[in-house]
Amino acid sequence: MTKNNLPLVDEIIEEQLTDSVELLRQLCAIPSVTDDRQASAQCAEFVAEILKSHGLETKQFDTGGNPIIYGEAAGKSDKTILFYLHYDVQSPEPVDSWTTPPFELTQRDNKLFARGAADDKGHIVSRLAALSTLQKAYGHFPCNVKFFIEGEEEAGSQHVESFIKKNRGLLAADGCVWEFGGVNLEGRPVQVLGMRGICYVDLKIQTASIDAHSGIGGSIFPNAAWRLAWALSSLKDKEERIRIPGFFDDVIAPTEEDLELLAQIPDEFARMKKMYGINGFLKGMSGLELRRASVFEPTCTICGLDSGYQGNGSKTVLPAEARAKIDFRLVPNQTPEEILQKLRQHLDTLGFDDVEIQYNGGTRPARTDPDHPFVKLTSETALAVYGKEPLISPMIGGSGPNYPFIH
Amino acid sequence: MTKNNLPLVDEIIEEQLTDSVELLRQLCAIPSVTDDRQASAQCAEFVAEILKSHGLETKQFDTGGNPIIYGEAAGKSDKTILFYLHYDVQSPEPVDSWTTPPFELTQRDNKLFARGAADDKGHIVSRLAALSTLQKAYGHFPCNVKFFIEGEEEAGSQHVESFIKKNRGLLAADGCVWEFGGVNLEGRPVQVLGMRGICYVDLKIQTASIDAHSGIGGSIFPNAAWRLAWALSSLKDKEERIRIPGFFDDVIAPTEEDLELLAQIPDEFARMKKMYGINGFLKGMSGLELRRASVFEPTCTICGLDSGYQGNGSKTVLPAEARAKIDFRLVPNQTPEEILQKLRQHLDTLGFDDVEIQYNGGTRPARTDPDHPFVKLTSETALAVYGKEPLISPMIGGSGPNYPFIH
Repeated sequence: MTKNNLPLVDEIIEEQLTDSVELLRQLCAIPSVTDDRQASAQCAEFVAEILKSHGLETKQFDTGGNPIIYGEAAGKSDKTILFYLHYDVQSPEPVDSWTTPPFELTQRDNKLFARGAADDKGHIVSRLAALSTLQKAYGHFPCNVKFFIEGEEEAGSQHVESFIKKNRGLLAADGCVWEFGGVNLEGRPVQVLGMRGICYVDLKIQTASIDAHSGIGGSIFPNAAWRLAWALSSLKDKEERIRIPGFFDDVIAPTEEDLELLAQIPDEFARMKKMYGINGFLKGMSGLELRRASVFEPTCTICGLDSGYQGNGSKTVLPAEARAKIDFRLVPNQTPEEILQKLRQHLDTLGFDDVEIQYNGGTRPARTDPDHPFVKLTSETALAVYGKEPLISPMIGGSGPNYPFIH
Repeated sequence: MTKNNLPLVDEIIEEQLTDSVELLRQLCAIPSVTDDRQASAQCAEFVAEILKSHGLETKQFDTGGNPIIYGEAAGKSDKTILFYLHYDVQSPEPVDSWTTPPFELTQRDNKLFARGAADDKGHIVSRLAALSTLQKAYGHFPCNVKFFIEGEEEAGSQHVESFIKKNRGLLAADGCVWEFGGVNLEGRPVQVLGMRGICYVDLKIQTASIDAHSGIGGSIFPNAAWRLAWALSSLKDKEERIRIPGFFDDVIAPTEEDLELLAQIPDEFARMKKMYGINGFLKGMSGLELRRASVFEPTCTICGLDSGYQGNGSKTVLPAEARAKIDFRLVPNQTPEEILQKLRQHLDTLGFDDVEIQYNGGTRPARTDPDHPFVKLTSETALAVYGKEPLISPMIGGSGPNYPFIH
């Protein structure tokens, strides 16, 4: 591509904008929450159709979970670029908190809103729109393109690693563009080189076959909610220290270069504080310490608690069951498997062998070397397109199945 | 009443049985969960009608909450008996666990099932059926009768104490028959002389205005669910010791006579274990220690936990809010007011001043002296009617507003 064609490219983008937004509307209308197998299957079919209509040869792979959609097309150069994307979305609950219905694409303040619009359906549509523009402008794709679009990213991408191991040849590429990316609030392009891993578990305790009346059992029956509160408190103390023995054993500290890159990223923390309505950050952290903690430290987060009566007023119930959802964010070189095993051992040691651990999926943390040539190429391209120096983020707090792609 | 009339009494009971069950069916069909103001108002009206149709003069008192129904009728002797009852019921959730619909009176194995059938609508109907029988058999009530039927017992009877203070004359009586009572599984009548008090609170923590993504906030945002787990664990430790300073200050130990009465009550614990499907009792207790703990010790019970995502699969949410419902069962001379104040102070001392306490009602513990003449009279009557020596229970684990009636 030469710069001379950029006005034509802009023109084509404008021309097809209405169609692109309509495509996104249709894609967001499918409620493909990872757990909803039916909606996910429908969404996979639709994604395959879109790829076909953009000139890619597609294949649908059964995984045992939601299908993986693969697409490819030849281009002018012998280089190959792979796009990793996903068509599943997080549950939209609590639905009452949405300004407009979650699965209805709505424009407000010149922005588009829907569950999955930003993560990750918007990126499916925008990558395809970009390719379509290039084809219209130049008559061909600039290089070979491959798409890998899965449907279980929001639940730990359980079938990705084994799929990659079996299909190394199919997925071979000179570089891989990850699901997200974009510009920050100042319009500067941001490149992300790494993600924390995740280990998501449900903890469940059952102390009786049915709930009891607290007047009868309060002094003498085991209470599942109490056992859960104590088990949880043993995982992390109120000074925010994770107390699972061996939890930090495999943690590798960030390099000087990592910290320098991190320091260059504009401070978003004041905006975050306002957006989430929080008084301050944990342990009074600020500056580089806060940045470093937010992406280079592992976590233990309670995502949900559920036990007994939760309605209005009082019900004197002694709960037979209690459940917690917990995610651990992992940094190199922690693995979900080891964390699971250490969690089990920790609970057993403290007498919480009645706490059942259900593994709900996980991915390893992984990073790309900031000095890799593909990082240089994308930075130069970003500068050419946006006219602004791109930011390089060595690591972000979120997770995805980048480990098997990188390694 | 002389024993000679008992066959006639039995005959009348049989004659009106179908009508009595039909009355109970209608009463149970009204879903008068304490919080449901509309259904409770409807139930209060219906209770007033029933009293009228049994020959009592009735009055309905507004309380600011659910109405109190009062009824009275003159009898042959100058003695007066007062019946305390309530028409409200606990929430039937989880409704899925019911074999038959909760508000539909159903007969199974010669027993009647519905929400409120045993607590306390069945007792309203059976007290009235007994009076109606006596009137038919003898042409008059044996003594003056008064009924006090409230609609907030399941939520701590918040308006009873002030009502009693204002209406001492109206409620004056020689004895009061409490809401429940009956025979045990061996057919022996049981008399209950005291109840623990209760202090029911909702604890609520809000750490942000909206939920966050755990990938973004996991290392740096405050998490309401974590703070709740830590605050709860500070109230009671995993050895079941309540850790609120001063909690036990006002506790009075049971007397030798109390323990002797307790020892005579048949052991129901094996049956309980089976019914609730529990492996054993707390701290391995058994025998008199278990009996004593079950009614003469105060408690701190988590009745419910609620935070973040509780559905299937994983959602990586960092909750902005977390709630727990807790009931404290109190023994003489603890009071809900003092416990509330000690709880607040304890949480503040540990830095949990962000934990909001919402008081959801309470009653003081109260007991009748086992040597009171009315206890002797009811024991003799029970023996005459049932032909079996009645059991005297000095205290039970449940709660009710008996304190203002006794004191």
